[in-house]
Amino acid sequence: MDRNAAHEMFDDDQASRALGIELLEAEDGHARTRMNVTEGMVNGHKIAHGGYVFLLADTTFACACNSHGPVTVASGAEVSFVTAARLGDTLTAIATERTRYGRNGIYDVTVTRQDAEGPAVIAEFRGRSRTIKS
Amino acid sequence: MDRNAAHEMFDDDQASRALGIELLEAEDGHARTRMNVTEGMVNGHKIAHGGYVFLLADTTFACACNSHGPVTVASGAEVSFVTAARLGDTLTAIATERTRYGRNGIYDVTVTRQDAEGPAVIAEFRGRSRTIKS
Amino acid sequence: MDRNAAHEMFDDDQASRALGIELLEAEDGHARTRMNVTEGMVNGHKIAHGGYVFLLADTTFACACNSHGPVTVASGAEVSFVTAARLGDTLTAIATERTRYGRNGIYDVTVTRQDAEGPAVIAEFRGRSRTIKS
Amino acid sequence: MDRNAAHEMFDDDQASRALGIELLEAEDGHARTRMNVTEGMVNGHKIAHGGYVFLLADTTFACACNSHGPVTVASGAEVSFVTAARLGDTLTAIATERTRYGRNGIYDVTVTRQDAEGPAVIAEFRGRSRTIKS
Repeated sequence: MDRNAAHEMFDDDQASRALGIELLEAEDGHARTRMNVTEGMVNGHKIAHGGYVFLLADTTFACACNSHGPVTVASGAEVSFVTAARLGDTLTAIATERTRYGRNGIYDVTVTRQDAEGPAVIAEFRGRSRTIKS
Repeated sequence: MDRNAAHEMFDDDQASRALGIELLEAEDGHARTRMNVTEGMVNGHKIAHGGYVFLLADTTFACACNSHGPVTVASGAEVSFVTAARLGDTLTAIATERTRYGRNGIYDVTVTRQDAEGPAVIAEFRGRSRTIKS
Repeated sequence: MDRNAAHEMFDDDQASRALGIELLEAEDGHARTRMNVTEGMVNGHKIAHGGYVFLLADTTFACACNSHGPVTVASGAEVSFVTAARLGDTLTAIATERTRYGRNGIYDVTVTRQDAEGPAVIAEFRGRSRTIKS
Repeated sequence: MDRNAAHEMFDDDQASRALGIELLEAEDGHARTRMNVTEGMVNGHKIAHGGYVFLLADTTFACACNSHGPVTVASGAEVSFVTAARLGDTLTAIATERTRYGRNGIYDVTVTRQDAEGPAVIAEFRGRSRTIKS
């Protein structure tokens, strides 16, 4: 895969890498990542804190919107938590660009877990981006 | 302060405690927490990952909506990132209940940093809760 | 096209029909509608009130989520206004189902206007639905 | 009350006035309006279309954010529908400013109906504004 501004940004994102997030793909407004739910992300019932699910989606969104080159930041996001992620789950997040206008962009991210019967949706995220400099 | 269901939930929330989040208050649909931005939460430019800001707000929201007693979960949230938090910042999050109806609730959380000239807003968060059992 | 619960709901929706909204398609969690921006929907600068753009998206969302049969209502929505619609514009709204879980659903609606160079996005809407009875 | 940019904007907003929306107050980032739910806003079951509830909130938000003077537009909004409004209801909307930063603002709007036992919340709205020129 071609390396671009998204990969440079991700290399610099120590927070995401410390959590074991892997950047699998980032190109043309699209990105795909993966993260395992570890002991540090769960509560006493072995259920992942929603904040870590959000964080994975947010990282994926950032990779998608920075894949175009210009430095772009998250101005906000909306998330719906669909089902709980659990200790040991491998989560995949896929970000797609919905639209761009002026310095703004809207990106959708779906976080899933692979279950025996196919991918199960964990969360649906929609991020709003703002390009701050070319 | 009286201990209630929010404190029990927080005690059980290893993920939040591992990040050093402190629960300062949780009562009657209101909660207040504090977190320091540490090395593990920032990128190479010493700016906090938005996911950790969200996580702090989400924890505070959970404490507020569980302070009533019945087990209540986050069904979703909307967040606007106002200004960046930086390494070493002490963030305070305050959650207030806006309304409850049926099993649903809406809670607003403001995350701030104390600056020389007063509190600076880092993020505005609105969470949607759902009570799952009494 | 097969008539289903969405068409019955739309027939009953005098508010939408009074605005000249046409239901072009509603099936399997998908819907498509059309509305002309009329004098009653604009301000003194001939720009459509965002409320009418939202209303069109909301109607389309309702048709999509009721196309499955059981009575389903909007519990909330998030909208981004991309560009202004103007007097005389013909707006098309397309709703697609993103996910359903329990009694909940998430639907995305894009409102566009046909410009000389192709469709221009007017608004991006994400609706949250709740099924209230089968 | 002092007339300001919000009142001029409202005078120009034929769409809102055609629906009978009254601007009761608009000052310092705050606004209050009123609207009766009429025949044209309801479905066959006499329940108001959510789009009209949104429109009322959106107008109130616009008055609040334009009360400061500079021309300001809605860039987006999030709404939760709490309970249905019905034919004949008088709805009141109150907008308050939550924060402003750069050219951006966040405003909360609560739409209520006066019931025998006090005000009942119909919807909670959060709008995002953008100032386009001074």
